[in-house]
Amino acid sequence: MGSIAQNVAELDASTFNITRSTNLRDVPLPGSPEELSHSYCTDHMVTVRWTAANGWETPEVKPYQNLSIPPTASCLHYATECFEGMKVYRGYDGKLRLFRPDLNGERLNSSAQRSSLPSFKYDELKKLVGKLMQIDGSRWLPKERPGSFLYIRPTMIGNGAHLGVQVPKEALLFIIAVPWPDFIKMKKEGQKEPSKGLRLYASNPETIRAWPGGFGYAKLGANYGPSLQAHGQAQALGFDQILWLFGEDRQVTEAGASNFFIIWHNADTGKLELVTAPLENQLILPGITRRSVLDLVSEKLSKQAVGPLEPLQVVERTLTIGEIEKAAAEGRIVESFVSGTAYFITPVAMIRNIDTDISTLGPNGEAAGYAAQIKSWLEAIMYGKEEHDWAYTVEHEEK
Amino acid sequence: MGSIAQNVAELDASTFNITRSTNLRDVPLPGSPEELSHSYCTDHMVTVRWTAANGWETPEVKPYQNLSIPPTASCLHYATECFEGMKVYRGYDGKLRLFRPDLNGERLNSSAQRSSLPSFKYDELKKLVGKLMQIDGSRWLPKERPGSFLYIRPTMIGNGAHLGVQVPKEALLFIIAVPWPDFIKMKKEGQKEPSKGLRLYASNPETIRAWPGGFGYAKLGANYGPSLQAHGQAQALGFDQILWLFGEDRQVTEAGASNFFIIWHNADTGKLELVTAPLENQLILPGITRRSVLDLVSEKLSKQAVGPLEPLQVVERTLTIGEIEKAAAEGRIVESFVSGTAYFITPVAMIRNIDTDISTLGPNGEAAGYAAQIKSWLEAIMYGKEEHDWAYTVEHEEK
Repeated sequence: MGSIAQNVAELDASTFNITRSTNLRDVPLPGSPEELSHSYCTDHMVTVRWTAANGWETPEVKPYQNLSIPPTASCLHYATECFEGMKVYRGYDGKLRLFRPDLNGERLNSSAQRSSLPSFKYDELKKLVGKLMQIDGSRWLPKERPGSFLYIRPTMIGNGAHLGVQVPKEALLFIIAVPWPDFIKMKKEGQKEPSKGLRLYASNPETIRAWPGGFGYAKLGANYGPSLQAHGQAQALGFDQILWLFGEDRQVTEAGASNFFIIWHNADTGKLELVTAPLENQLILPGITRRSVLDLVSEKLSKQAVGPLEPLQVVERTLTIGEIEKAAAEGRIVESFVSGTAYFITPVAMIRNIDTDISTLGPNGEAAGYAAQIKSWLEAIMYGKEEHDWAYTVEHEEK
Repeated sequence: MGSIAQNVAELDASTFNITRSTNLRDVPLPGSPEELSHSYCTDHMVTVRWTAANGWETPEVKPYQNLSIPPTASCLHYATECFEGMKVYRGYDGKLRLFRPDLNGERLNSSAQRSSLPSFKYDELKKLVGKLMQIDGSRWLPKERPGSFLYIRPTMIGNGAHLGVQVPKEALLFIIAVPWPDFIKMKKEGQKEPSKGLRLYASNPETIRAWPGGFGYAKLGANYGPSLQAHGQAQALGFDQILWLFGEDRQVTEAGASNFFIIWHNADTGKLELVTAPLENQLILPGITRRSVLDLVSEKLSKQAVGPLEPLQVVERTLTIGEIEKAAAEGRIVESFVSGTAYFITPVAMIRNIDTDISTLGPNGEAAGYAAQIKSWLEAIMYGKEEHDWAYTVEHEEK
């Protein structure tokens, strides 16, 4: 069940077998078709093989290339697969940084266990990513473009040849890096008027993303493929994402592949709150950006105002779409946003619930500015404007 | 969402591009390590590419080989994948047959739709499988071994290079064939005493396989990988399969990857019934063997006795583990079995529910013989002892 058996090798990122690409590719410009393809990867990739008999093999860095996978591999039939989403940031001081990468390592282990894939010492993951960026980081995140990032995708798959339904006996951990469009900038450039935020489409009761006792809390492929149908329908209706509801009381869980937040005045006390769904029932992904938002707001905004932003309390609790609708009707909503690695922190402008459109902007039709402030604090850490122990510096070769 | 757009090509199995293998492999003997590997495929495979822009390309038959898959393909990250399980049978009359293959074609379409993969005209599937068996059937199912079968695995994956979470724009349908051990014979040979049936381990409330509004009814990879953890735990405790329960009333849904049946005397009327979970709530896979069992029992056993077997009524309804426990305590259970393509019809000897062991054999500790009779009827159709419109004959080259 993914635990490391005795006498087999643990994952060890202290040595690598390295094969350098002899055919380096052009680095795409921001907004280019290559970048928009979400698939134009850097020159190299990291792979680490695992077998039940021998454990983890020596990690390899090699030229980015297609994987050769047996048609009987369980990742193609039984979705024995999980992944992480991370970014590497080019700082204004020239350094390359990861953001809280050990949390990715821990979550990849949790996902691997849930999908019967092998475990590893969680802090090896940042070293594997670090090695890839040591080699590709300088060219693909030029120091002339501080404030830019690459998206990093560590992935684990069951790739052994065995068609029987069973716990995988072979696996592959691979890590790729890809230039990723800046979603927020992109939307603004493509529109005549600046967008005030995402338009979310609340899921109907016939389509449920996750369930208690299921695996909504793990970053498994199995959470994504079956959700594309509803996502595609929402996009066809002109919405950006599904807002996933759950249960007879229509609890708000996640938005697309992001965590959802609302800032409102409490119906009873009138106090300002930042509310998001709880982790306890294991319905939602424990987002690393989510956790960082909650940590930062608790630290910097729970006791004192910041400029025009009044203090607010962090509340992790079940919230329903009915509560949001009522808060909107009563003018209590101040702001709403989603958080995630791929699209970072993005304001939410409205939610359609069946046939009701709910504005999730403040009373004057604008976001109050909390999301922008939180984003700014996070970026200061990511891009090295502030020294912080959430940042992990990658040693790299500057060309 | 997987529907065929206008002006793109439909799947057409009337022409093929064929590349013959020049390196034919030895056909493994029954019970050999190659057969037990569940991965020693026949000499050829069928592949059909699909793109959103152009639809289905011309099907290919080519030597069995690894697939070359981009590391960014959605099947490796988002489980955009679904499959079918079928068999080809070598009849006692020398013919090769498929069993109700259009039901597989229909179900693969249903699964493809649920995972946002492309659809096709369902009856093309049997022609694709037929072409593979036209080429490999003669050698891999020798006419000297009538009554044998190969397992056939049609699979569809999203294999386009695009890391963004979206409906796949490229897909691959591939079909492989593999010698498959006869599970029932195998178990008997490995044991000192003949097994009276499977030992099932009822799932605990913290792990569920499927939920309303989910995708338990579709043959998606996403239903399998996340179930391996519980399956592995059950096997480590000496059980054969998980019996998946659902809901506060602990409804019995599926056993492992098979449908579950119980034959008992109704608690109120005393009448003999064959009970299995219903399809309406979409929690269970609509098994083709399940449907055939129900059809055959309705036709041949609902109105008259067959030898020593008394008539019984088919009942599709929600049943709970509590009802089974009560029936066992009251001596009302006559027999129990599971059905599926891979392991066909297999008796169930007992179920462990938390700390209670429930015998699901008849009062004298033996199965009554219904499963054996149903199996015999099905085999007569599969192996051509009886002419029946459920059988589809494959034209093949006899060497």
